Amino acid sequence: MKSQEPLDSSVKEMLDVAKTSNVSTVWDRYQSQLPQCGFGESGICCRNCLQGPCRISPFGDGPDVGVCGASADTIVARNLIRGIAGGAASHSGHGKHLAHVLKKVAKGEALAYGVKEAAKLNAVAARLGIPTENRSTKEIAGDVAQAALDEFSERETPNAWAATTLTAGRVAKLNELKVMPYGIDSIIAEIMHRTTLGVDADPVNLLLGGIKGAIADFAGCHLGTDLADILFGIPAPSVSEANMGVIKEKAVNIALHGHNPLLSDMIVATSREPEILAEAKAAGAEQGIQLMGICCTGNEVLMRHGVPTVTTAVSQELPILTGAIDAMIVDYQCVYPSLPTVAACFGTPLITTMDIAKIPGATHIEFDEDHASEKAREIIRIAITAFKRRCNKPVHIPPKTSKVVAGFSTETIVGALAKLNADDPLQPLVDNIVNGNIQGVVLFAGCSNIKVGHDQNFVAIAKELIARNILVLATGCGAGAFARNGLLDPQATLDYAGDGLKAVLTAIGEANGLNGPLPPILHMGSCVDNSRPVDIAVALANKLKVDIPQLPVVASAPEYKTEKALAIGTWAATLGLPTHLGLVPPVVGSKLVTRILTQDIKELTGGYFIVEPDPILAAEKIFNAIQERRQNLNISTRRW
Amino acid sequence: MKSQEPLDSSVKEMLDVAKTSNVSTVWDRYQSQLPQCGFGESGICCRNCLQGPCRISPFGDGPDVGVCGASADTIVARNLIRGIAGGAASHSGHGKHLAHVLKKVAKGEALAYGVKEAAKLNAVAARLGIPTENRSTKEIAGDVAQAALDEFSERETPNAWAATTLTAGRVAKLNELKVMPYGIDSIIAEIMHRTTLGVDADPVNLLLGGIKGAIADFAGCHLGTDLADILFGIPAPSVSEANMGVIKEKAVNIALHGHNPLLSDMIVATSREPEILAEAKAAGAEQGIQLMGICCTGNEVLMRHGVPTVTTAVSQELPILTGAIDAMIVDYQCVYPSLPTVAACFGTPLITTMDIAKIPGATHIEFDEDHASEKAREIIRIAITAFKRRCNKPVHIPPKTSKVVAGFSTETIVGALAKLNADDPLQPLVDNIVNGNIQGVVLFAGCSNIKVGHDQNFVAIAKELIARNILVLATGCGAGAFARNGLLDPQATLDYAGDGLKAVLTAIGEANGLNGPLPPILHMGSCVDNSRPVDIAVALANKLKVDIPQLPVVASAPEYKTEKALAIGTWAATLGLPTHLGLVPPVVGSKLVTRILTQDIKELTGGYFIVEPDPILAAEKIFNAIQERRQNLNISTRRW
Repeated sequence: MKSQEPLDSSVKEMLDVAKTSNVSTVWDRYQSQLPQCGFGESGICCRNCLQGPCRISPFGDGPDVGVCGASADTIVARNLIRGIAGGAASHSGHGKHLAHVLKKVAKGEALAYGVKEAAKLNAVAARLGIPTENRSTKEIAGDVAQAALDEFSERETPNAWAATTLTAGRVAKLNELKVMPYGIDSIIAEIMHRTTLGVDADPVNLLLGGIKGAIADFAGCHLGTDLADILFGIPAPSVSEANMGVIKEKAVNIALHGHNPLLSDMIVATSREPEILAEAKAAGAEQGIQLMGICCTGNEVLMRHGVPTVTTAVSQELPILTGAIDAMIVDYQCVYPSLPTVAACFGTPLITTMDIAKIPGATHIEFDEDHASEKAREIIRIAITAFKRRCNKPVHIPPKTSKVVAGFSTETIVGALAKLNADDPLQPLVDNIVNGNIQGVVLFAGCSNIKVGHDQNFVAIAKELIARNILVLATGCGAGAFARNGLLDPQATLDYAGDGLKAVLTAIGEANGLNGPLPPILHMGSCVDNSRPVDIAVALANKLKVDIPQLPVVASAPEYKTEKALAIGTWAATLGLPTHLGLVPPVVGSKLVTRILTQDIKELTGGYFIVEPDPILAAEKIFNAIQERRQNLNISTRRW
Repeated sequence: MKSQEPLDSSVKEMLDVAKTSNVSTVWDRYQSQLPQCGFGESGICCRNCLQGPCRISPFGDGPDVGVCGASADTIVARNLIRGIAGGAASHSGHGKHLAHVLKKVAKGEALAYGVKEAAKLNAVAARLGIPTENRSTKEIAGDVAQAALDEFSERETPNAWAATTLTAGRVAKLNELKVMPYGIDSIIAEIMHRTTLGVDADPVNLLLGGIKGAIADFAGCHLGTDLADILFGIPAPSVSEANMGVIKEKAVNIALHGHNPLLSDMIVATSREPEILAEAKAAGAEQGIQLMGICCTGNEVLMRHGVPTVTTAVSQELPILTGAIDAMIVDYQCVYPSLPTVAACFGTPLITTMDIAKIPGATHIEFDEDHASEKAREIIRIAITAFKRRCNKPVHIPPKTSKVVAGFSTETIVGALAKLNADDPLQPLVDNIVNGNIQGVVLFAGCSNIKVGHDQNFVAIAKELIARNILVLATGCGAGAFARNGLLDPQATLDYAGDGLKAVLTAIGEANGLNGPLPPILHMGSCVDNSRPVDIAVALANKLKVDIPQLPVVASAPEYKTEKALAIGTWAATLGLPTHLGLVPPVVGSKLVTRILTQDIKELTGGYFIVEPDPILAAEKIFNAIQERRQNLNISTRRW
């Protein structure tokens, strides 16, 4: 199918290798699943009790209710919000894991970790109302960690990581809609309860319950980002590279895959120790140890340590096919269970590390934060041994790499703008939005999905928008797509940006001593880091004395696939953003739910979903959504 | 289909009314769903990400993995444990709701409620290590309520309602398997996380995670029962009746449906106030107000107040078809969304009361525990108004009723045995098990399911077992099935029990001044009350100095349907019980998962699943499982 053609030549090249090696990849598995079940695709299949499974006829020529009497509206809403619960559980589980480690740090345990960013710790503490004056970092860290853990239990006060991070207007709106969360785990359980047989059958009530779960997801994301910054440092721009060419034939190549930086950050540190480097060289790896990232663990180590990105989620199997990966280390989320099978064909150790994420056929080395460095060393040594076993066997490494400038945390962006106006860093951004040099801001988030030609949607839409003077932010696999396709290279600003955007990015770059522009897309981190662009939107709204739904800001998930993306998309629309989806979500079996999400919700929250698979039409719709908001702000200076 | 023929003549009669009235019921909806999806039935359909839905070929002639590479084993295990999470969320959500009310009581709020059973409060407090001496009931209640609420958050100690209620051997086993829960909501969230795309792919690891969730469900159930007893009283036997004949033509008939007694208990109390009774009579209801229960709310008010049972979950629509129901009040769980449609045909108000459980077409009166009596009065008045609107229109009430003796809480059973041996109440039970008068104990739990001829499995299996001198306990819709079919009547002991059982039940009855036997089946409560029979098993095991897996005790869910039943069945097998299922669970798509649940788990926990849809064969297998245990205990005096 043409629509499935990947954009990236390295990916295509490795797919040829897969074919000649007779290795099945996600491309093959997707083909073998076709045609997929239309009931499931439309959201009108229910398996929530043993009287089912039930299916609603989408054409009116079969049953219009399930055995219990649930309508398509009920079934679609129930399925959707269970997906949101799965997403919220994932992001917040990652955040909770970090909170436990910060708590250990505060208690003087988990010695490999520490508070790397005391200023951020203090800023988060201040936001939470935790005293900082005359207190040790450990004391403050203990209180922040406990505050984070307290977010999960049912509470009498709203979740602090939602109630203190948003605009006053949004907080009031969430309270008004009764969708402000009061405990993350508690709301996940509530969603599971209300969606079981014979509880909530009202699609609107169900969707509101799901929105509350999505806001809980936002709290979990923001908490995860904050704690990661405290433990591992606030990302700052560094130059790195992306794509298969980062694999070095004569290096011990270690791929880091998953989402949580707890282990990967240790592997980065350990891999740079002279002793372990000497071991690698002694094993014949004259190019030393080459780390590289996949998916969001990749984004974490790229953002903080400049570790190159080899590829993103959909193509996670392909680096192994080079024959040059000496270990793939995975933590959790988006890790395909197929990996051990592919790895076995190439003698690559596939190492799982988390107790809730094992894979048959993998080597499991249980992560232990109290012995994190030792675990990291143990794992790197497995890779060194595997390198030795490689014995100069032929490898096939597509040479392509792209230059990448990444590491644009909120703090970094504000800091860069401060070079233009130290007293009021956001003013230059506001001025340029008002004068039309920047028409608006689009955040690309979400995953890569085999149903979309790999990277095609991301790159096509972004190029359209950059040319139209839209400032583009990116996270997750979206950022990975841009990295591998050259759009995180400052040169791309010169090649693709409209004049207004080019001028602004160049001015910021020059003011920051870069002798050239910023890249046209600012890589803000992993998918859990979608809270970072929200922080910018909140700051912008507060400065302009408007609320988020007034801002010329749009979110787009053109190739999304996970339940996490359902949660993120739902909170984006709830926070007031037009939210583009490049695939049709499994809701079209209910006209009511579809209408609520694409139309009615606009009245409630100001945000809404734009569903448009075609990238050119999508860019048009996104741009129009921005123009609508510019007009409402009376700043309709259209520069494109 | 013959297998779907209901056993109960009243149900058949009302189905004829449905046909002539042209009202669609669950029987019709089930037929319209046939054939149901075989992928879903086998558990090999995955919708946990947007690259799906994926389906595994059960015949080896199609894909053997999903798009991500998940195998049938992974997919089946993931689906199963998400179901367990749904069940645990439901039971524990019900328990949490009660904990909030107990906390209000402790604070002097929610004035309609109080501590009805101070002795139980003290017993629960003592078990939890909460001091009771020289403390007021309110102080103790506050601590117990808080301890209950603390069960939901992630904790550093095991869930008290699991760790303090089981045998030392079971606690050690749960710790050894690492399936002891440390926070109910937290584990539900963990299950949602580990089952999302790319997290846990190891079916064994997934199942262990699910088992932990099931033990969390047990904790939630036990907590729910304890708090309900504290707030509403420990059930004690009373004589009542069951079946459609309890509807009175000239009464204001109010059906109470759902699970949580918070509102229904208030309605019972309020309905007995002279003032409201006078209003009913003034409206022409010369037979006053007739309350009746459906499903587990029905069990709650039957157990504590002798309110008759009209029917059970599958047939919940049918009482409305009599034309004589003046209001159906529902709380949550197992409430079919079809009810408002059926109710509309007969002018019956269908009143939803819980914010997480609305139904389109119903009248929603939000329950408010601070104004519980007023809400109860408001609802009863709606029924009185509806009665007036009935205007002597013809009704069709099947006259059948069965005598019911219900209310066998653990405390009641031990109390009744104490009349035989005051110093050591369990000794007579042990003696009779050892001498073979009682061959063993079977707990019938779980729902009714339209796929089984209504009541057929329950009644056929129970009769076989009673004849073979098995002491039968029942909860939930199982108890309802026995109630409507005459098996909770002491006369049934004379009619159906084997000689040994008959002698024991008669001795207990006589010693308790009943002038006859106990009924052959002891109704122990609603489905959340499955903790009650566990308490008896634990006491028995402790007395015999064995563990639960040694006891000649079996659980059976011959007509189960909800996710709650998946959770209960899983904890029953984990606690060491052979657990019969009368329907094939959605796991047969994985030979591995099927083998683990029916065979391998026996090595781990001593319990296991017996899947047998045929009632006669099921009775045989259950009996054999008991005999196997008797032999192992060297008490194989087979009396049948």
